[in-house]
Amino acid sequence: MPQSPIRKLAPLAAQAKEKGIHVYHLNIGQPDLPTPTTALDAIRNIDRTILEYSPSQGFLSYREKLVDFYARYNIHVTADDIIITTGGSEAVLFAFMSTLNPGDEVLITEPFYANYLAFAISCGAVIKTISTTIDEGFCLPKVDKFEEMITDRTRAIMICNPNNPTGYLYTRREMNQIRDLVKKHDLYLISDEVYRDFIYTSSPYISAFHLEGIEENVILIDSVSKRYSECGIRTGALVTKNKEVRKSVMKFCQARLSPPLIGQIAGEASLEADENYMQDAYEEYLERRKFLIDRINRISGVYSPIPMGAFYTVAQLPVDDSEKFCAWCLSDFSYEGQTVMLAPASGFYMHPEMGRNEVRIAYVLCKQELAKAILVLEKALEAYPGRTEPLRHP
Amino acid sequence: MPQSPIRKLAPLAAQAKEKGIHVYHLNIGQPDLPTPTTALDAIRNIDRTILEYSPSQGFLSYREKLVDFYARYNIHVTADDIIITTGGSEAVLFAFMSTLNPGDEVLITEPFYANYLAFAISCGAVIKTISTTIDEGFCLPKVDKFEEMITDRTRAIMICNPNNPTGYLYTRREMNQIRDLVKKHDLYLISDEVYRDFIYTSSPYISAFHLEGIEENVILIDSVSKRYSECGIRTGALVTKNKEVRKSVMKFCQARLSPPLIGQIAGEASLEADENYMQDAYEEYLERRKFLIDRINRISGVYSPIPMGAFYTVAQLPVDDSEKFCAWCLSDFSYEGQTVMLAPASGFYMHPEMGRNEVRIAYVLCKQELAKAILVLEKALEAYPGRTEPLRHP
Repeated sequence: MPQSPIRKLAPLAAQAKEKGIHVYHLNIGQPDLPTPTTALDAIRNIDRTILEYSPSQGFLSYREKLVDFYARYNIHVTADDIIITTGGSEAVLFAFMSTLNPGDEVLITEPFYANYLAFAISCGAVIKTISTTIDEGFCLPKVDKFEEMITDRTRAIMICNPNNPTGYLYTRREMNQIRDLVKKHDLYLISDEVYRDFIYTSSPYISAFHLEGIEENVILIDSVSKRYSECGIRTGALVTKNKEVRKSVMKFCQARLSPPLIGQIAGEASLEADENYMQDAYEEYLERRKFLIDRINRISGVYSPIPMGAFYTVAQLPVDDSEKFCAWCLSDFSYEGQTVMLAPASGFYMHPEMGRNEVRIAYVLCKQELAKAILVLEKALEAYPGRTEPLRHP
Repeated sequence: MPQSPIRKLAPLAAQAKEKGIHVYHLNIGQPDLPTPTTALDAIRNIDRTILEYSPSQGFLSYREKLVDFYARYNIHVTADDIIITTGGSEAVLFAFMSTLNPGDEVLITEPFYANYLAFAISCGAVIKTISTTIDEGFCLPKVDKFEEMITDRTRAIMICNPNNPTGYLYTRREMNQIRDLVKKHDLYLISDEVYRDFIYTSSPYISAFHLEGIEENVILIDSVSKRYSECGIRTGALVTKNKEVRKSVMKFCQARLSPPLIGQIAGEASLEADENYMQDAYEEYLERRKFLIDRINRISGVYSPIPMGAFYTVAQLPVDDSEKFCAWCLSDFSYEGQTVMLAPASGFYMHPEMGRNEVRIAYVLCKQELAKAILVLEKALEAYPGRTEPLRHP
């Protein structure tokens, strides 16, 4: 398994901090917003004397409340359709394990969340990618591109919507195109929708479960991590109306015995969060997005499309190699005792050269900090020896 | 993946309860003893506002304390050697994924903990078993039996010591025999030692890490689940001095991002439990073991060897088929409104016919409840239509 370029940067970041340099972390999807107090209170008020196994499928009470939660998004499922997992990560792993045999292929648009690759490798499956580009705003390629890639080993299409790393949100037309492909070739549609609560456009959110005629093909991946700033409690879900898939997933669930007990208690309590909680989080990200995109697009040689969801964007930088640039920011650069840590986009591409001059930026800092981080980025780009285009002063 | 016979019983148990019958659960390894108050307090006093990711390897502070914990057992490792996992289950899965390619073989004595099979299937590896028998008290077979099974695809020997399901504890002589095999054939030794705290014999506990000359071959599996009655928090560990194995395991760890945050907080706090905590738990199981084994061996036609560790025993019953008997206890039998749920031992054998007249009994009930459960078992055996030998009245 290849090592992600972002992991190579971790020791450099540690060294920068040791030198007393303040590092702005724009590299990780760890939200900085508070966890709902209802979740923290539920943990603090735990009245058990034994921290025993929970059911392999997850607590029924939690699954029943999730039914109502999904219904708000016009996703109509039953508690039986929901399997609680150890984070969204385990949901992806079990979805792959249950639908892909060794050598089977899953189609994913690139750039894509790099850990999908690790899960595919874990079950001997092969990821085949369909390229999307920053120049086209990461929109879905024409259907012919998919048709060209589909072989007799293709079993599934996987999407992440809204997208990590690009922030792209699939349109209704694109989702219908995917639906038709799934139907025509009888594929599974594995849809990672963990960022559904953060959509900043008036276009409707189209869940895989909104697509008619492929209800039995859809496997939804979900997680509380991003929604409620609860990455640490490892509580996700796999949702499917396909009984055979659920039966297979449950075997993996039973082998690992149970999802985390306290994570489920916190996840369930999060559903009772104050109405303003999600609205406040949403508005905070909305403002940051506008601020970030406006500011970075004003930096000479930088371009970012406007992300429609999640809390990431992929931006093009005027650099020879974003891996080198990101490393250099940590090892050789500082501006007034500060520097930035970014995720080289090459790590999100199956063809790393495609992301050679791109980075993923996560807006998980407050606006004031973001402003400082962007200034530092601008100064770094001015000073970087591998800059590829002359500095243009507005 | 085959369905474990114990899972087939779950709906029958639910039906029995619906009929108002009290079911004594001797079937599961869910300890009934309380979790340490230090762990519960740590959870209740959590002072975080964001439940964020923890490091993929687990908190350093926790790993450092585990170093001291293992040292008490004369297991000398560093914090770097320890990787915190999502339960012992994930430690087994990652150990297999990191050492076994599809088609590779791992040798395990049977009966064995059934979920090992699921993890092996997950990575396309093959479990080959070496039979142990109740007649020989489940002791390790002669070395020739292992030699016969070793092929050019054999990569590892896996042991569970003290053993689930048999309660067997490997002697120094047996452990040396395993060491010699591991050395001779350069195999990994994957050693599940989650029951090390419950050993009821004066024979020394021989950890895989006590074996000289195979330090780089050993992968230790550990968990807080049984030790502290914390099955629900999903906190385990994989410990190895082999850097290459750790590097590979860490890739799987990074893909799943982090082990449960609160589980680690509880696990770390459990190490500070009152000195009497472990002693009390130990003495409780010790007494129950004596009580259980004495009592069941007095039932006509029943035989159990004396388990030396863990909180299980495998007992032989005078029945045609223990799967049928266990199902019958739930569906067709009750004594004064009570019945028992046992784990058919066939589920722990690769060759289910070997466990046809055996059950695993977990002594996770207090003595008073155990006494009632054993009486109910005795009555059930008297009434069971598939009894294989005449009732003998002492």
